[in-house]
Amino acid sequence: MLKVKKYGGTSVADKDRIFYCAQKCAEEYRNGHDVIVVLSAMGKMTDELIAQAQTIHSDPSKREMDMLMTVGEQISTALFSMALETMMVPAISLNAFQAGMHATGVYGNARLTEIDTERIEHELSERKVVIVTGFQAVSKYNDYVTLGRGGSDTTAVALAAVFHADECEINTDVDGVYTADPRIVPAARKLEEITYDEMLDLATLGAGVLHNRSVEMAKKYGIKLIVRSSFNTVSGTVVREKSKMEKTLISGVAVDQNADRITVSGMKNEPGSEFRLFRLLADHSVNVDLIIQSVTGEYTKDVSFTIKDEDLEQVLALLRENRETVSYQDIRYNTELAKLSIVGAGMMSNPGVAAKLFECLYNEGINIGMITTSEIRITVMVKESEVVRAANAVHERFHLGEDQ
Amino acid sequence: MLKVKKYGGTSVADKDRIFYCAQKCAEEYRNGHDVIVVLSAMGKMTDELIAQAQTIHSDPSKREMDMLMTVGEQISTALFSMALETMMVPAISLNAFQAGMHATGVYGNARLTEIDTERIEHELSERKVVIVTGFQAVSKYNDYVTLGRGGSDTTAVALAAVFHADECEINTDVDGVYTADPRIVPAARKLEEITYDEMLDLATLGAGVLHNRSVEMAKKYGIKLIVRSSFNTVSGTVVREKSKMEKTLISGVAVDQNADRITVSGMKNEPGSEFRLFRLLADHSVNVDLIIQSVTGEYTKDVSFTIKDEDLEQVLALLRENRETVSYQDIRYNTELAKLSIVGAGMMSNPGVAAKLFECLYNEGINIGMITTSEIRITVMVKESEVVRAANAVHERFHLGEDQ
Repeated sequence: MLKVKKYGGTSVADKDRIFYCAQKCAEEYRNGHDVIVVLSAMGKMTDELIAQAQTIHSDPSKREMDMLMTVGEQISTALFSMALETMMVPAISLNAFQAGMHATGVYGNARLTEIDTERIEHELSERKVVIVTGFQAVSKYNDYVTLGRGGSDTTAVALAAVFHADECEINTDVDGVYTADPRIVPAARKLEEITYDEMLDLATLGAGVLHNRSVEMAKKYGIKLIVRSSFNTVSGTVVREKSKMEKTLISGVAVDQNADRITVSGMKNEPGSEFRLFRLLADHSVNVDLIIQSVTGEYTKDVSFTIKDEDLEQVLALLRENRETVSYQDIRYNTELAKLSIVGAGMMSNPGVAAKLFECLYNEGINIGMITTSEIRITVMVKESEVVRAANAVHERFHLGEDQ
Repeated sequence: MLKVKKYGGTSVADKDRIFYCAQKCAEEYRNGHDVIVVLSAMGKMTDELIAQAQTIHSDPSKREMDMLMTVGEQISTALFSMALETMMVPAISLNAFQAGMHATGVYGNARLTEIDTERIEHELSERKVVIVTGFQAVSKYNDYVTLGRGGSDTTAVALAAVFHADECEINTDVDGVYTADPRIVPAARKLEEITYDEMLDLATLGAGVLHNRSVEMAKKYGIKLIVRSSFNTVSGTVVREKSKMEKTLISGVAVDQNADRITVSGMKNEPGSEFRLFRLLADHSVNVDLIIQSVTGEYTKDVSFTIKDEDLEQVLALLRENRETVSYQDIRYNTELAKLSIVGAGMMSNPGVAAKLFECLYNEGINIGMITTSEIRITVMVKESEVVRAANAVHERFHLGEDQ
């Protein structure tokens, strides 16, 4: 079997953690498996590098930031390889140039385009554990580019796809995927299995275990994902297409407290006004999450959308600078909202789920600020101060804490 | 003009030092020059990385050590580029993959073989300051290899050679090349100019300012070297072929306290015995410095040679393991010796220099343990405890502290 094993920053944060994870890889190797390891930078390394850059330049070019950041994974892969050497397991670390990881040239937020498999194939054929730097790739100009949030997961899934790995294990600091964030909902229960789509909605909506890009890629290539803890031997959650859980009504409640709502009101009620607004944001690499549009009068319409907290200032500045192009009357924003979503593949064949959710919130006296839905998800925005209470109530109402 | 400017570890040790050096490069750029900057890792970074590796593995593979070490220069080049950005000077950092630095595949001690000039040429043509990671290159297997001691100087001189730079400035923590190490000989005087050969002998013999590999390369390609301090604006020492100082009898006294003498006695007096001995050492990348051989009897000969302190244990172990192959009766070694050399291009046309040196040491009551000479150099080994006194006496005897 070929196994891809990804370890995040907390999993390789220090010498002891590195040895613990290397030991697990050594066991797989000794059991005859081929092993590709994908690593993030150690613990706080990325934060330290950012802080170091900040002492030099308050807003350094993204090109040089990527050049700086990529050292983080190179350090962890070299040290991990040395740890395997102490266990007499042949190993080799490869950075993005060596592993042939190619991507689009968007610094700080690149997308993988192609993987040259030759080098890794060669090292696997020599029966080495191959340790690849996550999060980084090389652009067509031969520059380092980083893959943005969840980048190391993406690296792992992409390698699992091109090498037809039997499984891709995402080792993190939680035991698996839960019906809700246990820090918010104490009654949350670990799921044994979950479908890609459910995972995708949970990831997108802030469950925080896996980034949506890696789940999308896993779905596209049918990669069996295993989300588990690198701190213990608990079995984790399997993410795959044909889940035993598929018929479950609701598989989880997700909360995202890192969302701000912006309303652009009094836009001209004519074709192209949404295009001009969201093209502007896309050109500045702002990720827009939910979008709701309503026509408020014969000649005007309002558009509301949510963005991450950290993008708020940039978005407001962009909108003010481009008032004429976008053509609107007013901007309003609310930073004291949070998103709550319920996700479940069974939802699409079961009417009344939405009504049950709204009733539950009504019983708690919680007002709903915005609603959007997909086939397997219902999202509401509520006051940030009420979202924890809301999540616990919904979790209980849908019996998510009970074995199903 | 195209200028290559190399800054060592102490020159980029912290934020303030980086800004100071970047400011100098910005000035050159604004004066219309093309500038290639070559950097070492910041201050103690290399030591920190080695220490980190040691916590994982007492003797990690050199391949993984090189993978780890190369992050040092990548960090300093990225930060240096950001510092130039704050001065509105367009700049770009390039690692060995990007700068096309190719080398033989000897981890930890590689030799540059070829430089792909395309990328750097392109960036220069866009009027950017190009900042290249020193000390590192890429092997034919696409692995990182480091260039060993003085590696960043070598990178700088090699770039100056392939790009036909008008000068190659080696910025270090001393003001230039002195007639002797000022810490040992207080009367030492800075030289305005020196020839490659003199510099080469001074470097080889432990003057410590420039590594011999970079001087050899500068001589081969006729690169004008400038050795100066990155901490002030003192003019430094120019190293080039046609030196005004060429006729000076002696240009400097060099002391090397980091030398051990090994004597292998009772080797068979037959062809090939030296070959077997030094092949063995070369195969293990031991740098041998001075060699003296004497025939002690009809059937045996003794060979003495000097090595660096840190290689002693390895060399003794090698000789003991290979006693049969090398075929000798006994090994002796002395770690309490130091080398003292006088160097000067004028020496070859001036008899009596050696006699003057020996007389001076005799007057000081200092015994000579070993003598070797070249056309422009005389080296003696004396007791380590006496070498400072010897150097000061010789410096005074040859009037090196006086303007010439």
